[in-house]
Amino acid sequence: MSREVKITFQPLGRSVYALPGTCLMEAAARAGIILRADCGGIGACGKCVVVVREGHVPAGTNEMRVLGARRVAAGERLACCARVGGPLLVDVPAKSLLESGPRILASGSREAGEREAPFAPVVLKTFCSLVAPRHGDTDSDLALLLRDREESAVGLEVLRTLPGVLRSSGFAVTTVRFRERLIAVEPGDTTAHCYGLALDVGSTTMVAVLVDLATGAELEVAVRLNAQTKYGDDVVSRISMCRENPRGVVLLRDAVLADIQGMLDEVLEKRGIASAHVYRLALAGNTTMQQLLCGIDPSALGELPFVPVFKRGLEVDATALGLRLNPAAHAFVFPQIGGFVGGDTVAGILAAGLDRFDGVAMLVDVGTNGEIVLAHNGAMTAVSVAAGPAFEGARIVRGMRASAGAIEKVAPDRDGDLLINIIGNCPATGLCGTALIDAVAEMLRCGVIDVTGRIMSRDELPSGLSPRLAARVQTAPGGEAVFVLAYPGETADREPLFLHQKDIRELQLANAAIRAGINLLLKHAGLAAGDLQAIMLAGAFGNYIRRQNALRIGMLPHVSRERIRFVGNAALLGAKRALLSEEDMETAQEIRRRTRHIDLSLDPGFQEEFGAAMLFPES
Amino acid sequence: MSREVKITFQPLGRSVYALPGTCLMEAAARAGIILRADCGGIGACGKCVVVVREGHVPAGTNEMRVLGARRVAAGERLACCARVGGPLLVDVPAKSLLESGPRILASGSREAGEREAPFAPVVLKTFCSLVAPRHGDTDSDLALLLRDREESAVGLEVLRTLPGVLRSSGFAVTTVRFRERLIAVEPGDTTAHCYGLALDVGSTTMVAVLVDLATGAELEVAVRLNAQTKYGDDVVSRISMCRENPRGVVLLRDAVLADIQGMLDEVLEKRGIASAHVYRLALAGNTTMQQLLCGIDPSALGELPFVPVFKRGLEVDATALGLRLNPAAHAFVFPQIGGFVGGDTVAGILAAGLDRFDGVAMLVDVGTNGEIVLAHNGAMTAVSVAAGPAFEGARIVRGMRASAGAIEKVAPDRDGDLLINIIGNCPATGLCGTALIDAVAEMLRCGVIDVTGRIMSRDELPSGLSPRLAARVQTAPGGEAVFVLAYPGETADREPLFLHQKDIRELQLANAAIRAGINLLLKHAGLAAGDLQAIMLAGAFGNYIRRQNALRIGMLPHVSRERIRFVGNAALLGAKRALLSEEDMETAQEIRRRTRHIDLSLDPGFQEEFGAAMLFPES
Repeated sequence: MSREVKITFQPLGRSVYALPGTCLMEAAARAGIILRADCGGIGACGKCVVVVREGHVPAGTNEMRVLGARRVAAGERLACCARVGGPLLVDVPAKSLLESGPRILASGSREAGEREAPFAPVVLKTFCSLVAPRHGDTDSDLALLLRDREESAVGLEVLRTLPGVLRSSGFAVTTVRFRERLIAVEPGDTTAHCYGLALDVGSTTMVAVLVDLATGAELEVAVRLNAQTKYGDDVVSRISMCRENPRGVVLLRDAVLADIQGMLDEVLEKRGIASAHVYRLALAGNTTMQQLLCGIDPSALGELPFVPVFKRGLEVDATALGLRLNPAAHAFVFPQIGGFVGGDTVAGILAAGLDRFDGVAMLVDVGTNGEIVLAHNGAMTAVSVAAGPAFEGARIVRGMRASAGAIEKVAPDRDGDLLINIIGNCPATGLCGTALIDAVAEMLRCGVIDVTGRIMSRDELPSGLSPRLAARVQTAPGGEAVFVLAYPGETADREPLFLHQKDIRELQLANAAIRAGINLLLKHAGLAAGDLQAIMLAGAFGNYIRRQNALRIGMLPHVSRERIRFVGNAALLGAKRALLSEEDMETAQEIRRRTRHIDLSLDPGFQEEFGAAMLFPES
Repeated sequence: MSREVKITFQPLGRSVYALPGTCLMEAAARAGIILRADCGGIGACGKCVVVVREGHVPAGTNEMRVLGARRVAAGERLACCARVGGPLLVDVPAKSLLESGPRILASGSREAGEREAPFAPVVLKTFCSLVAPRHGDTDSDLALLLRDREESAVGLEVLRTLPGVLRSSGFAVTTVRFRERLIAVEPGDTTAHCYGLALDVGSTTMVAVLVDLATGAELEVAVRLNAQTKYGDDVVSRISMCRENPRGVVLLRDAVLADIQGMLDEVLEKRGIASAHVYRLALAGNTTMQQLLCGIDPSALGELPFVPVFKRGLEVDATALGLRLNPAAHAFVFPQIGGFVGGDTVAGILAAGLDRFDGVAMLVDVGTNGEIVLAHNGAMTAVSVAAGPAFEGARIVRGMRASAGAIEKVAPDRDGDLLINIIGNCPATGLCGTALIDAVAEMLRCGVIDVTGRIMSRDELPSGLSPRLAARVQTAPGGEAVFVLAYPGETADREPLFLHQKDIRELQLANAAIRAGINLLLKHAGLAAGDLQAIMLAGAFGNYIRRQNALRIGMLPHVSRERIRFVGNAALLGAKRALLSEEDMETAQEIRRRTRHIDLSLDPGFQEEFGAAMLFPES
């Protein structure tokens, strides 16, 4: 039975449950809080400092050296070194966050791959206290308001409200500008009320963050399962729907827009903010999702040569999209690289700083569609691979999404057996993708499966195997060898929860797709795995993968563990950056132009690499 | 009884009725056809040549000299010299028109004040025959279409239709661009179907011209009484309505938009053109009309300091205005100079070329609101004066608009009496503004009234007055001296049609307002009337005024008659220019910036000038 403990992170108030022994940095990541790990998480740089307010965390030698006795005594710890013992309440200083509004504001020394764009949202509110026109004044209302800038663009709706707003407010008004365009004029001083929503529009999961555009602060987060999943699990099935059903595009668009509106309404209600104060959206998703949410038919993505309708980022009237917020709001839809490599990848590159990385680095976003980008000599190349839904828990006999009841972690304990961690601290009902990777990595390590992925029969098990692990290898009715992940006492249905041979095959397919993509990118660039100075793991899923296990199953090429960095939900972070900084929006456009797309379906070497990657590494 | 004859002008097929002896150029102007008169209409330049196809017009010495015997024998005549004898069918060559689409295309020697902007509408259609994407192509649909111009702005609606239009047409499509923005993509080659509508939105009368944006040709004209007149005769009453009635703006907007839509539908139906092929409007009106048609409250124009909401020209989504045409169409609403000097004046300056006039010139647009612009040393100054509705026939006992049954011209005949011309060749029901001016000018000439405007009693009449004229001075019941304009045999009600003392007072008020405006503009510039090289008379009404009569009543300062030019409905011509040439649109914006507005209500000299101008000139 799981012995997980609750860890709460302040000031955001997010809680997660984690097994004792879990690294604090990992627990924070699971709560969606990505801490800095400039040294690669080896306890050297001191950037990931957190403060333990309640509960006990022993300090290690790294912390005494980096922080000093006085700071350690005050509760400061390095999140990359500190391990969970019991329940904790932890303060996360803003400076330790890999991404945050205030930090974007701060200046400081830059590191490779790190970006410090100025806090300058593309939507700007300005309070203007004007003098009412007097006898002899010849300015128009607009000229009075804009002074010498009357030539800037103004919408008809603004002009319709302008004379009334000016006179009802005694000529004290707030202008709302979107770039050079005056999009609204509000009575009085409303400069404090200006919000934006950043969205990662995933085919399966969508995440939205409400951002205060006046301060840069992140206010609320909402997460939702994409309602399009009821029409099909992956983008391919949704494209097929558009090709076959004349109303397909509209049905899918309506589904995803209802979700987006729902998330927006949810975060606004939590904060008591009026939707009229939301002036900006930044949306990042793959090419299919972005086209669908715009109401653009993605049919041409369903056949060679997989043509997207647009590539450069779009500015779209939010009302033209069909969303209810300020009618003058615009949405930034991220630029797309090509094929299935979409706006989420551009946003990920932006957030990870891959475009500024001074050396060779790779961004790997693991999901149903895996996107991999190689940065090398200032150039970037991207591929997408169809990993299939195994990482999301689908096509796995007892697979499920990472939600309550899912085994999300499998780790060896001190008694030669396995510990499991279940999301929500309840009996297990299935396992999610990270647990699948953990389990297969452990089974490889102890010889329960061989490099072909075959589960040994009981008489083939290695002689040194601990009795408790050996006991987990059983024969299911029908003679199939299975592996017990959870015993009846740990499960909701009081039946053992097995990992099947078929499940391991599904993992091998997903795993091989990612690895083949990585290998081909390196090959095209004439590089070897050893040249990679960093592998940045991105995505809601990628963020929970245990690095040593990803290495053990061969998902990632053999590099030292410190070179593998977690960059969090990079698509969401990139969308947030675009909200907070016009410069970052421009950078996103530039990233699109600078990134070449390789269509692996045209590469004769892909099948070969894929086949080779189906075998797990020897050790 | 009128002996007027029918004159038809080809190729437009427009007919008017005119008295024998009327100059052909004036008859053409009455049909809305403004001919060139570069020499001022003295038979010297030969630019106003027309060809008489049916009917007889004797040739004069000027024509023999300028055209030669052979051309005269072929029917060519100078419209400024030729006089109407009987019914005529006349061809008007395009080169003789002051304004026309094709002529804008033509190059040639320029004259002072004349503009030859390139034919380059801001809406451009281009046919593109593309190669369908093949295996290995990585362009998006948009990049395929726009090549290296993918960075230009594109609306969501275009992206939504783009993949379908490309594939259903076999990748042969027509792009529609508005400046750098791609506003539509249509299957096949539709470059021949591209139309625009130019509008003069007057407070009383509105005129629309349908223009072929592919060729520059003017196709159809529609005229309508502004339906807002049911809410009030002039802009002041409509502004009052907006100040008093919360729904005032909406009611007035709906009224004028229904008219504009009606005119658009009318001209399209005549030509069998689909409204989806109309991509552009150019709208010129006074400040109140322009704000009302945009749905912008003009209340601030109803009190000092008469503040318009905008001055620079606007680009407005036609659908945001509320019009049914191509949903991607934009409307150009003309820049406004200030106070009541609006877009129609800017359009008039553009059409008359006043901004390029090399010397001292004045544009006078006579209407309920008179606008006067002085160009001097490259600077322009504009005033507006409230002339009142007398020129439009209102507040005159038997006054009416220039429509069927209206006496529109009064001239001396050879028998010492007066000839009258009635619009529509029917019995008279009233008189319009031009006839009022004619009549008063004649009465001044023969001494029936004195310089104070008083109608002489029968015993005060000059001794040399012809008996027929003397007979027209009668005493109405009540003892008032009146002047008979039409005898019972010429009128619809078989009663004499009188001009009353009160009518002459109304004309004096309107006349004095215009003249005071002219005088003050000259005074501000330190100029005398003799410095004026040209007075350009504009407007539907100004165009029909007889120059010598306008001089006689003192509406215009004393300049030689050749310096007075008719520039037609300059507001409409200017709107048409903006449709046909992006350069002229830019010029309109520049004219606005270069033209200073003087608010005469602030000028202490105005009442003095106005009072002085109430007296007619001695001779």
